[in-house]
Amino acid sequence: MFSWRYRCGGRDVGPLTSPRWQCPDTAGALELDGPNDVALTDAGHTTIARYAALLPVDPARFETLGAGMTPLLPAVIAGRNVFLKLDSLLPSGSFKDRGAAVAVAHLAACGVERVIVDSSGNAAAAMAAYCAANRIGCVVYAPASASAAKLVQARAYGATVIPVDGSREAVAEAAQTAAEGDPQAFYASHNWSPVFAEGVKTWAIETWEQLGRTSPDTVFVPTGGGSALAGAQRGFTATAEMPRIVAAQPAACAPLVDALVRGLDVVPAAVPGHTLAEGARISDPPRGAMLLEAVRASRGWGIAVTEAELRDALRELWAQGVYVEPTAALGAAAFARAVREETELGDGAQVVLVTGTGLKATEAVTTLLNG
Amino acid sequence: MFSWRYRCGGRDVGPLTSPRWQCPDTAGALELDGPNDVALTDAGHTTIARYAALLPVDPARFETLGAGMTPLLPAVIAGRNVFLKLDSLLPSGSFKDRGAAVAVAHLAACGVERVIVDSSGNAAAAMAAYCAANRIGCVVYAPASASAAKLVQARAYGATVIPVDGSREAVAEAAQTAAEGDPQAFYASHNWSPVFAEGVKTWAIETWEQLGRTSPDTVFVPTGGGSALAGAQRGFTATAEMPRIVAAQPAACAPLVDALVRGLDVVPAAVPGHTLAEGARISDPPRGAMLLEAVRASRGWGIAVTEAELRDALRELWAQGVYVEPTAALGAAAFARAVREETELGDGAQVVLVTGTGLKATEAVTTLLNG
Repeated sequence: MFSWRYRCGGRDVGPLTSPRWQCPDTAGALELDGPNDVALTDAGHTTIARYAALLPVDPARFETLGAGMTPLLPAVIAGRNVFLKLDSLLPSGSFKDRGAAVAVAHLAACGVERVIVDSSGNAAAAMAAYCAANRIGCVVYAPASASAAKLVQARAYGATVIPVDGSREAVAEAAQTAAEGDPQAFYASHNWSPVFAEGVKTWAIETWEQLGRTSPDTVFVPTGGGSALAGAQRGFTATAEMPRIVAAQPAACAPLVDALVRGLDVVPAAVPGHTLAEGARISDPPRGAMLLEAVRASRGWGIAVTEAELRDALRELWAQGVYVEPTAALGAAAFARAVREETELGDGAQVVLVTGTGLKATEAVTTLLNG
Repeated sequence: MFSWRYRCGGRDVGPLTSPRWQCPDTAGALELDGPNDVALTDAGHTTIARYAALLPVDPARFETLGAGMTPLLPAVIAGRNVFLKLDSLLPSGSFKDRGAAVAVAHLAACGVERVIVDSSGNAAAAMAAYCAANRIGCVVYAPASASAAKLVQARAYGATVIPVDGSREAVAEAAQTAAEGDPQAFYASHNWSPVFAEGVKTWAIETWEQLGRTSPDTVFVPTGGGSALAGAQRGFTATAEMPRIVAAQPAACAPLVDALVRGLDVVPAAVPGHTLAEGARISDPPRGAMLLEAVRASRGWGIAVTEAELRDALRELWAQGVYVEPTAALGAAAFARAVREETELGDGAQVVLVTGTGLKATEAVTTLLNG
């Protein structure tokens, strides 16, 4: 794993032997340079361990908790055939397990003893699970307003949860401050970490393998902080065949889609409105410019999903036996829009990434069913 | 699938062309006769569709929702190596998906338009999911006292939930009465159905494949109604190498363990006490004599797990990143007891079946963490 290097805007800024989450001078987003070719796949494993040689991990000490080869389920959305990539069935219940498995393995190899994260949702659960698997500590800074039920899973894995009053930014600041004051700890933000995104790329490589070593025509990706999208870009680079990447965001908070539509090179912060897709309510994604470039280079586009479209997509998924949380239906809703607007979709496979299980959203589902 | 036959105490009672849940004369439990040999495995599928030729289903119309090949995770319990079979990661969150996939496929092939079940937990969710996948109706009779949160998943899949006042038996009676009055409906009790158990056998066959086509030395199986255990017996019969089967029950409700210890040929009903392992709080399992015979023929035994042992096993699983509900820790708790009592375990693999995800037990987990 230590042949991997950090890069900032194309410039080498050192090896992965010490953990980093930002570029040293510019405070910009880091990129990585390392082996990224499906030829390195080890078919002897069915978990993401099969891609260990394409990841910044030590294959001999890579704890996967069994993550990997989630089903690629044939389904019908808006009357058209599609494949659902069910990352909702990963060990902690969301696609973030892929990133957390690799990010925590890297931090443990760097000698980090305590991982500090700021999240109240899927990222906290995933990071806590893999800290447990790697036998290192995990401290979760969460908004005091976050529902206790959502944090129970992280606590069960052994994480310490610290509630913080104030805004989402105040929570991130508290986490960063805590990490700066603790030499054995490291602030691991999944939205900044390039190592996390490297883990997430495995969803794309698995999809390519499951389609008989062929990339899809188009992939529809729920996009908030952008790690699923960054992962798609990295994963399909490894397969040497890039599908069109569609970024699906809630219309109530769609900074990336907005920048794509307006032809910008940076992503201006959005003023987030109310949306059921809570996990994608991120007004100012750290890697905005990178995400824009990834979508454009793939000849992809963005779709801002209305709340009505999101509810329809949720019901359509549930009604065929696929239980997902609201945020996880963004990709299906975007696909339905593309079908309705008669967007030209190629002959290849259409793939929708399903990011998280409905079992984490009992309150929201109850409200929808009773509403 | 219609080469399969129903049997009652060794006697042929007809083909599977019409749905049955009990022996016609005796009201005893049905058995099945049909192809059950791993040589029939279709390695072209990674889901349970690979075993379609060993199951009473039409391979061309078998909706799996992606179920199958759940991880066999190496772990350490009570200081000893063990493999955890993570059926908690199946589509609806429990091992019951295996049985429901096959039971509903069979009912749909028989022309049933509405499946009627009585359950407030994992079976309701699993049956509702596969009814959705097969586009047939599902009606769940549930105790009026059951938590609404638990039934939300089945409702999301499109099931109608009917609350019934009174005892668990009153709920079953209401379901049976409703089915008798509706010629397009069928009462599908997972604890009676031999077709359901046939689906559950796939956990055992997968385990055998994942161990390099070798059966484990011993399997530790959470046991309430007994479908996981009946499935183990059928599955390892298909592999022609039977491990010792250990039935793990909560001490507060351990009728099968009690009958094993006392050397009985029938299972007297227990008076159930309080237990965290709610899913195994079944005082009078329908197939008692069959289950006794399965354990004995395997040279297995029973272990009645105390509440303290169950809590310890839960914490040990969570602390290594495996999030399970209390009932699902019965197998791990029984394994820990076997290690502590220095039970002679063979050189072969020790396997613990993990039956359901912790995401369904937020309330119970919260109580444990705060307690």
